Parts: sequence; C-alpha cells; structure tokens
Amino acid sequence: MKKGILLIISGFAGSGKGTIVKGLLSNYDNYTVSISATTRAPRPGEEDGRDYFFVSREKFEEMIANDEFLEYAQYVDNYYGTPRKYVNSMLDEGRDVILEIEQQGALQVKAERPEAVLMFVMPPSVQEIYNRLKKRGTESEEIIMKRMRQGAREAGVIEKYDYLIINDDRYECIRNVHNTVCCAKYASKRNKALIDRVKSEFNDFLNM
Amino acid sequence: MKKGILLIISGFAGSGKGTIVKGLLSNYDNYTVSISATTRAPRPGEEDGRDYFFVSREKFEEMIANDEFLEYAQYVDNYYGTPRKYVNSMLDEGRDVILEIEQQGALQVKAERPEAVLMFVMPPSVQEIYNRLKKRGTESEEIIMKRMRQGAREAGVIEKYDYLIINDDRYECIRNVHNTVCCAKYASKRNKALIDRVKSEFNDFLNM
Repeated sequence: MKKGILLIISGFAGSGKGTIVKGLLSNYDNYTVSISATTRAPRPGEEDGRDYFFVSREKFEEMIANDEFLEYAQYVDNYYGTPRKYVNSMLDEGRDVILEIEQQGALQVKAERPEAVLMFVMPPSVQEIYNRLKKRGTESEEIIMKRMRQGAREAGVIEKYDYLIINDDRYECIRNVHNTVCCAKYASKRNKALIDRVKSEFNDFLNM
Repeated sequence: MKKGILLIISGFAGSGKGTIVKGLLSNYDNYTVSISATTRAPRPGEEDGRDYFFVSREKFEEMIANDEFLEYAQYVDNYYGTPRKYVNSMLDEGRDVILEIEQQGALQVKAERPEAVLMFVMPPSVQEIYNRLKKRGTESEEIIMKRMRQGAREAGVIEKYDYLIINDDRYECIRNVHNTVCCAKYASKRNKALIDRVKSEFNDFLNM
C-alpha cells in the first residue's frame, strides 16, 4: 500500500481556503481532512468534532505536554493543533490527508516531514483580501486590519511553501490544487520504494 | 511575459521518451523541442536539422571551446550537446522547452538552472526495457547488453530527477508528463515575481 500525500493548505484570511478544502472533499474521493483542536470560540454554524475539536486552554496545554500534536501554533491569541494519531493512520491507509493550518504549523510539519506538500492559496490581489473579509461581515474593522497586518507578515514566508495557487475562480482553483497533488505523487522523493525496485531488477537481470 | 519551463526528459534506452516528446509536441501547443548537436551517425529516417544537428567531432569540440552548449555529454562513444542560444530565446518568449538528454547533461543543466523540471521516464519493468530494445531490432545483442549495463548505472542517479514517470500506456504517460509540467508552474521557486508583487501590494495597502 503506497502512503498517501500529506497536503498542507494555508492561505491569507479571505483566500477561500476553507472552500477549496470542501471542494476537494466533495469532488474527489482520495482525500480525508484532519480535524484540528483549537481554543478559539466556535463561529456560528461550526460544530465540535466536525469543524474543530473545541477545547479549553488547560486541555490544549496538557495535549502539548503529552506530544499529541503533529504541529500546533498560536494565531490571533488562540491555539490551533493537529492531533498526530489520526493523520498517521489515514496516510498509512493510502488516503491523502488535508491539513488546513497556519504558517507556523505548516513549517513545523515540513521540518519533520519533508515529503509533505505545502500549498499556499491566495486571492488575486491584496485589495481583494480586504474586500472579502469586509464582505464576510463577521469581524470588526479593527480585527480585519489586524488580519491584514498578519497577512503582510505571512507574505514574507510564502516562498517556503512548495506551491502558490491563486484562487480567482474557485472551481478552477480546486482543480489546480487536485492536479498538483496528483503530480506530486510522481516526485522522486516520494518514490524511494520504486527506485529501489528498479535497482534490484537491474541487478537481477545482469546477474542472470 | 512569464518565462517558459525548461523540461528535461531522460529515460532508459527503450523507455519510449522519443514517443513522449512527439506526443507532447503534437497534443499541446506550449512546447518547443530543443534540437541537439551530436557526433553519432544518423539512424535510418533521421534528418539533419530536424532530429539532430549531425556534426563532426572536430566541429563539436570547437563549439565546446566557444561555450556554445547549455550542456553536453559523451554517451556510448559519442558527443551530444544542447546549443544554448535557441533554448534561452524560446524560454524568454514563454515557450516550454523540451530537452531530451542523457543524465550527465541533465545534471549539468540542473546545477546551472535549479528551476528546470527534470523528468525520468521508465518502462514498467527492467525486463520490459530489454524486450523493447530487442523488438526494435536495430541493435546487436552486444549493444543491447551494453545499454542494459548503462541503464543499471543510470538507475543509481534517478533519485536526482524531480519526477519519475512510468511509461506503460503511452497516452496516459503523455498526459501525466503534461499535467506535471502545468503544475510545476505553480511552484514557489518559479514565482518569485508574484511573491514580490504580493509583498509590495501589502506594503502599499498598509501605508495608505
């Protein structure tokens, strides 16, 4: 059984990364999404155990101490983390596992798992980031500007991602992300078993 | 104008890489193939200036001295090389330029141009390499075995390629190679201009 791809999707606030993840899950059957734990309050419509595991700060810090996270990060005053166990078992079953996480966490995972695919989703322009946050209407101007400043800091790190994908038309973006994951499966660094097989077949052939 | 992708295709003898290149050129309009210079004799049906520039050993060595090659290599007693000028002008025009070259040359290009896409095409098995060379019927058993030994050496270097693609069904293989080139265009290392634009748009936005 070939291991699945660990797909990390990050993006500026307002990049539509949540929509991209939903589109991957509903259009293709190779994906599973990892559910994060967080200390932030649920937004309207969010459900515990489906969107996030909503936990207290004390509980989260206990899980950190027990090394239960593949990565965790603090972002706009809250903790977010990826429980390690579920991700590993899905990858072993050959599923492609999506982590929708922030940059801090993404780089932690990349350091531990260089074979992960890091993807950063961007609106077509910075002005469009502001427009989308404004249109969402769930956050104050102060919080929106805080997110814009956060975005400016994130822009300094996007070159550490493997791929940058622009989310202009969402259907095209979902297709592009999916194709990129499919092609990532051909990368040499994810085919060490194949390379070893070829070497050993040559040995066998020449020593016949 | 965004620069084109420099696509390097190598493969074991009998991998069908020539067919893949022809398929890319005839099915998609973004590709141009680089024509190599070589000192080997033309095979039946090959044309000077279309398949290769067939040149003498003296002429080839003069071109090396004048630094006219992006890469060159000696392979089974002959020189093969890629004239630099044509490749650069096509890339600048936004064309994706295919180089069908051997490993020595591929690694030379990768060292000079880390943004190149290195792809290695393989038959589904080593036995199949032998079968295809045998079926081609243009070479003696001695030459075929020389190629098999060459293949075994090449197998030791395939992990330096970016992608390994298996050529079982040729149509599927051509599609897979093309999709991989398309997705390679999203790689961060090929989008430095986009990253700089985003950073400067954030600066402008926050300093308004």
